[in-house]
Amino acid sequence: MSEIRKDPLIERWVVIAPERAARPDAMNTDPGFDSAAEDPFLEGNEHLSPPEVLAYRDAGTQPNSPGWRVRVVPNLFPAFSLTDELRKQTDGLYEQMTGVGVHEVIVECPHAEWNMSRFPTETIREVLLAYRERLFDLKQNEQLLHALIFKNKGALAGASLPHCHSQLMATPFVPIALQDEIAAALTWYNTHQQQSVYEAILQQELAADSRLIHETDLFIAFTPYASRFAYEVMILPKQQQSHYEQITKEELFDLSPLLKLILQKLECALNDPPYNYVIQTAPLQDDSLPHFRWHLSITPRLTRIAGYEWGSGCFINPLAPETAAEVLRNVTISD
Amino acid sequence: MSEIRKDPLIERWVVIAPERAARPDAMNTDPGFDSAAEDPFLEGNEHLSPPEVLAYRDAGTQPNSPGWRVRVVPNLFPAFSLTDELRKQTDGLYEQMTGVGVHEVIVECPHAEWNMSRFPTETIREVLLAYRERLFDLKQNEQLLHALIFKNKGALAGASLPHCHSQLMATPFVPIALQDEIAAALTWYNTHQQQSVYEAILQQELAADSRLIHETDLFIAFTPYASRFAYEVMILPKQQQSHYEQITKEELFDLSPLLKLILQKLECALNDPPYNYVIQTAPLQDDSLPHFRWHLSITPRLTRIAGYEWGSGCFINPLAPETAAEVLRNVTISD
Repeated sequence: MSEIRKDPLIERWVVIAPERAARPDAMNTDPGFDSAAEDPFLEGNEHLSPPEVLAYRDAGTQPNSPGWRVRVVPNLFPAFSLTDELRKQTDGLYEQMTGVGVHEVIVECPHAEWNMSRFPTETIREVLLAYRERLFDLKQNEQLLHALIFKNKGALAGASLPHCHSQLMATPFVPIALQDEIAAALTWYNTHQQQSVYEAILQQELAADSRLIHETDLFIAFTPYASRFAYEVMILPKQQQSHYEQITKEELFDLSPLLKLILQKLECALNDPPYNYVIQTAPLQDDSLPHFRWHLSITPRLTRIAGYEWGSGCFINPLAPETAAEVLRNVTISD
Repeated sequence: MSEIRKDPLIERWVVIAPERAARPDAMNTDPGFDSAAEDPFLEGNEHLSPPEVLAYRDAGTQPNSPGWRVRVVPNLFPAFSLTDELRKQTDGLYEQMTGVGVHEVIVECPHAEWNMSRFPTETIREVLLAYRERLFDLKQNEQLLHALIFKNKGALAGASLPHCHSQLMATPFVPIALQDEIAAALTWYNTHQQQSVYEAILQQELAADSRLIHETDLFIAFTPYASRFAYEVMILPKQQQSHYEQITKEELFDLSPLLKLILQKLECALNDPPYNYVIQTAPLQDDSLPHFRWHLSITPRLTRIAGYEWGSGCFINPLAPETAAEVLRNVTISD
């Protein structure tokens, strides 16, 4: 069982998860995949993962056997588990709680494919739908206050397997990055006649045009004004909605080709870069928040994160977001 | 000239520094040093760096020529500069200021040495003294609100050159990580009868013993309770002092062998790991803060930082700090 510890200074939680040390590459500083290792996410290798919690399958196929298109399984080396109950305790000035939570893997395709951008849009739509379905389900467990969905693509972005997958971590705390963002968004809302800062960003990016990469009926993709990383991209819904799990069918149809296009452009412009993406969505147990809007952030990992970034929480980005947007706008993708 | 942009949501500053893109490895995702490249920090290669701002030299030697032991020079690819004046402007909802600041390199030895731990303690003491001297000097410029001193050791920790060096970045803003820590420390101070949280941590770590690695007359070295990284080490002064530049001569004499010992233990236990260290010190223009204490944090880079950490601001550490402390305590260093 892992243990969740609070920094004595700030509301930053650290998961002490010795289970994670059992991963073959837990402390491997030399990034790269073991090409001889068997791919546990291939169709036919279902027995190499814990039993599935969700799968989109062809009619007539059985759970934990071939015939699936997208499959969600518990992580084999989970940072959290639901086997224990949530207990909090203190030790002098320190606070901790048991490592109650959920750590799942969304296996995005049954065959050996490393790049989500090569999926048909229907597959991307099913992945985005699986995220929604998992969040809806996890919401039922009132101990789980938040779930973060993220993707690590490439060894340098932290992936330990090349097969296309994303992950979900549901925790009994709201992570500090989201807490800070929601608190700041609420301050903005209260000081700007109840306009959301996301709506203000949307309007300004549409008007300014210099950081816009692509606009669809229901979303915009742009490089944020204060991008931390070169070629960082944000995808923001046009309609107010704080919770990703409330994404509509129309939005799923609109978002999947947009996500594919942005990933294609990044791959083409940056020669198949390592990247992370993260969905920032409101805490699971919160009601709809008018001041916060869910969004998806894609961060290519082109520059090294070093002492300055760790020590300051600030970033040095060698590329103006306007230049990055121009490069990405000019990448032509043929169908 | 670089540009400093504020995130529209939180007080997080991002430096847009196209100058940095000119570095040979600015966007090189494949970490490693170019072994054929000339070492600009070697004695005799002074002409490869901008003119020195500080050097500890043998008597009778000339600036920017051989004969130095520790030498501080402006970074050749600076993220900031003092050539422009500080101007702030807004663009709709966005805020920015000119990239006024200082970016220096502390070259720690004149010969080809990659590991600070192999220095005689006198050399480490001169490096620590150079930090103090630079902070005192930079304080005179009232535009500079903060200076972060940090070291990137090894390509995987973000170093672009193997020759022992550390860096200093002085900025017209206080970084968000320090702002948050000082704000939280003030809250603690005000709710705990004006005791500093650092004093509370010091007392508890000395009493508990399980995370203590080494104690000297004036400092303790321990693995923090909520360590973000495996084998993270904090060095904390026993005497209250918010500003590193106020470090005393006695403290310098006490700290230098301790820092050497901890680096030796880390190298021995972890086979010469990449690491960062950072000195967290109070803002340059602030008076002494009774609620904050400067400290030095060393973070080996053994695990990959991926989507979860970026998205949440929280960390998953596969090693209990108590285990790390035990390992490090048990490493014996012979003189």
